[in-house]
Amino acid sequence: MSHPDSESELTRRALLPAGLRDVLPLDAAHEARVIEALLAQCAAHGYDRVKPPLVEFEASLFAGPGAAMSDKTFRLMDPVSQKMMGVRADMTVQIARIATTRLKSEPRPLRLCYAGEVLRVSANQLSPERELVQVGAELLGGDSVAADVEPILLAVEALRSIGVQNLSVDLTAPRVIPVLLGEAELDPDTLAALRAAIDRKHASEVSKLAGPMEPVLTDLMAAAGAWQDSLKQLQSVSLPEAARAAIDRIASIAESVSAVEPELAMTIDPVENRGFEYYTGYGFSLFSRGVRGELGRGGRYRVDGGEGLRSAGFTLYMETVMRALPEPVRPDRLYLPFGTSAETARALRAEGWITIAGLDKEGEPALEASRLGCSHLLKDGAPAAL
Amino acid sequence: MSHPDSESELTRRALLPAGLRDVLPLDAAHEARVIEALLAQCAAHGYDRVKPPLVEFEASLFAGPGAAMSDKTFRLMDPVSQKMMGVRADMTVQIARIATTRLKSEPRPLRLCYAGEVLRVSANQLSPERELVQVGAELLGGDSVAADVEPILLAVEALRSIGVQNLSVDLTAPRVIPVLLGEAELDPDTLAALRAAIDRKHASEVSKLAGPMEPVLTDLMAAAGAWQDSLKQLQSVSLPEAARAAIDRIASIAESVSAVEPELAMTIDPVENRGFEYYTGYGFSLFSRGVRGELGRGGRYRVDGGEGLRSAGFTLYMETVMRALPEPVRPDRLYLPFGTSAETARALRAEGWITIAGLDKEGEPALEASRLGCSHLLKDGAPAAL
Repeated sequence: MSHPDSESELTRRALLPAGLRDVLPLDAAHEARVIEALLAQCAAHGYDRVKPPLVEFEASLFAGPGAAMSDKTFRLMDPVSQKMMGVRADMTVQIARIATTRLKSEPRPLRLCYAGEVLRVSANQLSPERELVQVGAELLGGDSVAADVEPILLAVEALRSIGVQNLSVDLTAPRVIPVLLGEAELDPDTLAALRAAIDRKHASEVSKLAGPMEPVLTDLMAAAGAWQDSLKQLQSVSLPEAARAAIDRIASIAESVSAVEPELAMTIDPVENRGFEYYTGYGFSLFSRGVRGELGRGGRYRVDGGEGLRSAGFTLYMETVMRALPEPVRPDRLYLPFGTSAETARALRAEGWITIAGLDKEGEPALEASRLGCSHLLKDGAPAAL
Repeated sequence: MSHPDSESELTRRALLPAGLRDVLPLDAAHEARVIEALLAQCAAHGYDRVKPPLVEFEASLFAGPGAAMSDKTFRLMDPVSQKMMGVRADMTVQIARIATTRLKSEPRPLRLCYAGEVLRVSANQLSPERELVQVGAELLGGDSVAADVEPILLAVEALRSIGVQNLSVDLTAPRVIPVLLGEAELDPDTLAALRAAIDRKHASEVSKLAGPMEPVLTDLMAAAGAWQDSLKQLQSVSLPEAARAAIDRIASIAESVSAVEPELAMTIDPVENRGFEYYTGYGFSLFSRGVRGELGRGGRYRVDGGEGLRSAGFTLYMETVMRALPEPVRPDRLYLPFGTSAETARALRAEGWITIAGLDKEGEPALEASRLGCSHLLKDGAPAAL
C-alpha cells in the first residue's frame, strides 16, 4: 500500500492551471538549444537581441497595434505606481516601443530580435497553451521590396538551420479586402456577414452577399494558390488602384524570394486577412508540410498606427516549431564511481562527457550506473559502455 | 523644433514600472550567452534542464518553503478555474514540485537545472529590480557530504567558466542559531530582539539580551572568519548536540571543498541565518571580491517541510553575475552593398561574418556602412575594414 494522503497531496500539487505546463528533461534543453540556434541566425544577419520585461503598464502594452491583445492579457495592479500593468501577451509591440523610445536615435533601418515567454488569459482551438514562447525579428525603418523580403528569407534560413523540412510560405495582401470593402456600398450588417464569409472562404455565401462586388471577390478567392498561377490569375482581375498596388507589391516580393529560393514552396492568398488586421503591407505565414499549425507569421505594419515608423518582421511560435523537429535523443552519460578524483572528472568533461558522480560508496558501480540511467561507467580509468 | 506631442508620447511610452527594464543590444545577447554557458556546465555534470511555467496556482507555489515568497508574489485570477494563481517569485519551489510529482518515479539522486525570469511585487534595498533572472541547479535525494559539496563545486566551476574572478564562498550553518534559541528560556520579546541583534551582528546588544546564552553566542559570533581559523575557534565552543553536529558537518564540507579547490577563498559564519530560514542543512553564499551583492546562494533544505525529500542546490542571481563580468564588446559587422547576391552573403556568414544587407541603392556604400555602425564593407568581393 502506498501512502494515500501523500499521494493525493502529490496529485494536488501536480495540477497546473489549464494551458500551463512543465517542460521536462530533454525537451527543455532541446527547446533552449533551438531558440539559441534561431537567434544565432538572426544575429548573423545583423539583428541585435533585446529583452523587454515580462510586465509593462497597460498604456504602453496596448499602444497602436498592441490594442488587439488587450482582451488576451492578464492584468496586475502595481503597488508602487498604483497603475495597472499587463503581463505581455505578445512581444512585437514591446520591440516597437524599444525602437521608438530607448533606441530612437539609432540609425534606421534598425534590426532587432528577441525570444521570450508570453501569457494569454485564454487558449484558443489552435493552441491549447496559455504560456507560449515567441522568437522573432523586426526590421524597423526600411520600406523597399528588399526590406519586405529580408524577414521572409531570414525566417526560412533560420528554420532550415534547425532542421525544419518541407517549408512553405503563404503570402497575403492584408490591405486588399479592407480596400475593396471600404468602397462597397453595403449596410453594416451585410458588410460584417460578408467579411465573415470571406474569412471562412465560403464562396457561395460571398456570392450571395457581395452585390456589385461579387465578380471581383469571386475572382480574388479563386486566385489563391501556387504563387505563379495566382499572379497570372490576378492580372485579369479588375481592382481599384490601392488594391492593385498591394497585389503588385506581393508580385515583386514573390519574385524576389523565388530568385533566392527557387525550390521553396510559395503560395499567395489575396483575401486572407484574419490575424493580419494590423498589417499595412504584405503578410506571410510559414508552414511545414505535415505539421499542424503555423510555424510563425510576419509581414509589414505601421509601428505607430499613423504615418510613422514601419516595421517588417516575423514571430515564430516555438510550440509548433518544436513539433516540426525530431524528438531529442538522450545523450551518453558516464557514471563516475564514488571517490573518482575531481581532476579526472574535469578532464572527462573537457573531452565532452556528461559525468554523473557517485555520492555514496556503491556496492556494485555498474548496477548504480545503470540504475541512474547512465550509458557508460568509468572502469580502470576509462569509459566503458554498459 | 521637434514635435512636442510626439516627444511627450514617446516619453510616456518609455516609462516602465519601477524595477522593470529593457535589456538592450549587446547586453541582452551577452546575458543569454552567459546563461547558456552556466547551464552547459550544469548539463556536463548530469543536471537535466527543466522549464516550469511562469504562473501556477497559489496552492502549489506557496507549498512548503514556497510560503516565504507569498508576500512578494503578484496574484492573478484564473478565469478558467476561478482560482488564484501567482506569478513565480522564485523557481526553487517549482523545481521541487516537478521532482516530487512529474518526476517522482525517476531514480534518486535526481539532478535538475533551470533558468528563467521571476517577478517580485516590491524591490528591496539590495536589488532595485522586480524582474530577476535566476539560474540554478538542484540535487534532489542525496544526503552525503559529497552531495552537500557537489552544488558548491558546480557553482564555482560554472562561475569560473564564464570568467568570474576572485570568487569566494561563505559557508553557514543555518540550524545552529534556531537550535540554541530553541533551548533558551527567554520571553518572546527578548527572543525576537536577540534574533534581530544576531542578524545585525550587533555584539554588545547580543551580550545584553542573551542572558545565560551570552558566552556561547559571543563565541560563535567571534568565530566567523576564514574557514580554518573559524573551525579551530568553534572546537572550543560548548554547544548542544544538534548544534555541534551542524558545525561538524560544515567542517566536513569545508574540508572537502578545499581538497578540490585549495585556492578558493572560503569563510564560515556560524550565526548567519537571514534568508536561510528554510534551509535545514548547510547554506552558502557566493561572492566575487569587489562586486556588490551576492552572486548566488544555496544549501540544503527539506523539499516537503517534513521528513521527506531533501535537496541541495544553488540559485545564481544574474543581475549580480553580469556585474562581475566585463562589458560585452560590439563584434565586427560587414556591410553588404545593395545587390550583393544571397549566395555571397551566405558564404560570408558561414565564415563567421555578421552581415548587414543594404536594402536600397546607396550613393556611397562606405558612407552607408559607417552610418549603420559597420566595421567592414564588402568591396571588390572581399571584406575591407572601414
